[in-house]
Amino acid sequence: MKKINFVIVGYGGMGSYHANTLMPTEKEKINVYGAYDVLPERQAAAKEAGLKTYASYADVLADTDVEAVLIATPNDSHKDLAIAALKAGKHVLCEKPVMMNVVEFDEVLEVAKETGQTFMVHQNRRWDPDFLMIRKIYQDRPIGEIFQLESRVQGANGIPGDWRHLKEHGGGMLLDWGVHLLDQILWLVDSPVKDFFVDFSQILGDPVDDGFISYLTFENGVRALVEVGTTNFTKLPRWYVKGIEGTAKIDDWDCQGEMIRATRAENVSAPTPIQAGVGLTKTMAPPSEEAMEKIDLPTATAEYQPFYANLYEVIREEATPIVKNSEVRQVLALIDEMFARVAGK
Amino acid sequence: MKKINFVIVGYGGMGSYHANTLMPTEKEKINVYGAYDVLPERQAAAKEAGLKTYASYADVLADTDVEAVLIATPNDSHKDLAIAALKAGKHVLCEKPVMMNVVEFDEVLEVAKETGQTFMVHQNRRWDPDFLMIRKIYQDRPIGEIFQLESRVQGANGIPGDWRHLKEHGGGMLLDWGVHLLDQILWLVDSPVKDFFVDFSQILGDPVDDGFISYLTFENGVRALVEVGTTNFTKLPRWYVKGIEGTAKIDDWDCQGEMIRATRAENVSAPTPIQAGVGLTKTMAPPSEEAMEKIDLPTATAEYQPFYANLYEVIREEATPIVKNSEVRQVLALIDEMFARVAGK
Repeated sequence: MKKINFVIVGYGGMGSYHANTLMPTEKEKINVYGAYDVLPERQAAAKEAGLKTYASYADVLADTDVEAVLIATPNDSHKDLAIAALKAGKHVLCEKPVMMNVVEFDEVLEVAKETGQTFMVHQNRRWDPDFLMIRKIYQDRPIGEIFQLESRVQGANGIPGDWRHLKEHGGGMLLDWGVHLLDQILWLVDSPVKDFFVDFSQILGDPVDDGFISYLTFENGVRALVEVGTTNFTKLPRWYVKGIEGTAKIDDWDCQGEMIRATRAENVSAPTPIQAGVGLTKTMAPPSEEAMEKIDLPTATAEYQPFYANLYEVIREEATPIVKNSEVRQVLALIDEMFARVAGK
Repeated sequence: MKKINFVIVGYGGMGSYHANTLMPTEKEKINVYGAYDVLPERQAAAKEAGLKTYASYADVLADTDVEAVLIATPNDSHKDLAIAALKAGKHVLCEKPVMMNVVEFDEVLEVAKETGQTFMVHQNRRWDPDFLMIRKIYQDRPIGEIFQLESRVQGANGIPGDWRHLKEHGGGMLLDWGVHLLDQILWLVDSPVKDFFVDFSQILGDPVDDGFISYLTFENGVRALVEVGTTNFTKLPRWYVKGIEGTAKIDDWDCQGEMIRATRAENVSAPTPIQAGVGLTKTMAPPSEEAMEKIDLPTATAEYQPFYANLYEVIREEATPIVKNSEVRQVLALIDEMFARVAGK
């Protein structure tokens, strides 16, 4: 087993997280070999962490000991960095959003095809424990067939960092958390998007979106509400999922929540009307006790390999990637359409 | 002070609720005089309750002691009943949805104009305590200017009753709870609807909607998500409201919830990144403690009259109605458009 020598390109928050936390989970396979950043202080940090550093990106690509690069730079720089690396015979792992748009992505895929190098995107949130639970509920149907998924990520800190405020760098929340949430949903539902609605939030005065609400209708009939917010001082649940026989919610990253299903017991008594505001309602009254039961949320682990283990096999053994470029392209195409729809194109 | 003699037309759940609960709150002004229903068992119930009953609707209208009728029958019968009553010189209070569509409503309004009788709609949920709290937050701005309102009513009992399952009677949830929630929002925001999105749920196999999700964009920039569900075994909060300076939620009819706002304190430390799934996030990390404060949800009462007190003054003293027909018409026009949009018209 020959380790893959990786150079981290862009040694910021994400790049150093790969180097220090993610790559070491597969240290038999992945070797954090070096790093490159345009900022001197980050070069210094990389050197201090014991990584080989380079004077230029060209030097990285000229280093024959380097087999692969991780691109963790601002979004608008991904394309050129990726193409140069592929042409230099390096494999490329790219942070999300993979590119600024599908046109860019297709260029890169074309080069990858020509060179035969691996190009893969770090859609790591397919391994999020909360997502795995929802995926299990979707697949095993403890609350019947799922017809509606609501996926929300809400914070109160506004848009982070510097370049994420800028359009030309691919800033904004749709291209940040949005990419993750849409990737999860599209991968899970695995049906073409028939139609969508989207509304961007620009409350904070940035030229980019500080959040969005989208609603997708899939050809198989499933609906998904996908929302990212950065002006939410109290939150709605991370997941809210409706099946024919019940409903599940997961409150937060801690994966707490609840799942309630209809018992379909015989002789269930009708719900008792309740006072709701100034009126009575039977429709919105809680079902009678014997009509519902609380069931445990599933425990779930990925039945697929960890990301870096898979990447290793993709590079070394031509294994099938878990994160396929065709899937990544679908998400990006949807995002392109969302921007175009709002721009009135 | 001469009481207004009312006859309840349609002595079902809603009609009897008016007779037994709502009208008696103004017993100096409103007299529950009689009732009429096409079903013999309901006629019997009305008689047993001490109400005068009638052999036919014509008999109600011929009774010169009757000054006003409450129409609480299936939705498709409102128009003919209302027009006949107005022409017979009776005032009309009508349950919601006022009519099947705007064309019908305009016909009725025309007759009311000709006859000079009062026609008013029972949009009683403008007096709901939870709505009054949201209204106060909207107006007093303890969390800054409100730019997003989310109003949800979710049950797990499906569509209630019999005729509400049928299209020809004006069944479905948009014409049921939807009318209330849209009336509240349109009245509160008080700005033209610039655009909307709507998706109906027909999960239960009924020919009508068993719920819907709508998203309204107002000309003043406010957004509102309005949702009714009848297949929700666990619920999202009744209200979720975002202001520039904070967020409020009200969980349920009991008006519990929370309101959090930014302190805008100086020297607030940056939020500490948290582990979220398999990744780190600073964007979605809780703001530092000194950056937010919990404030009390407001107590709120209507600064306007109770419904029946207002109706009395409208009839007796030409007071301004709190529920204006022009407002009711806006809601109905929006609903018409929602149905048309989905039907692809």
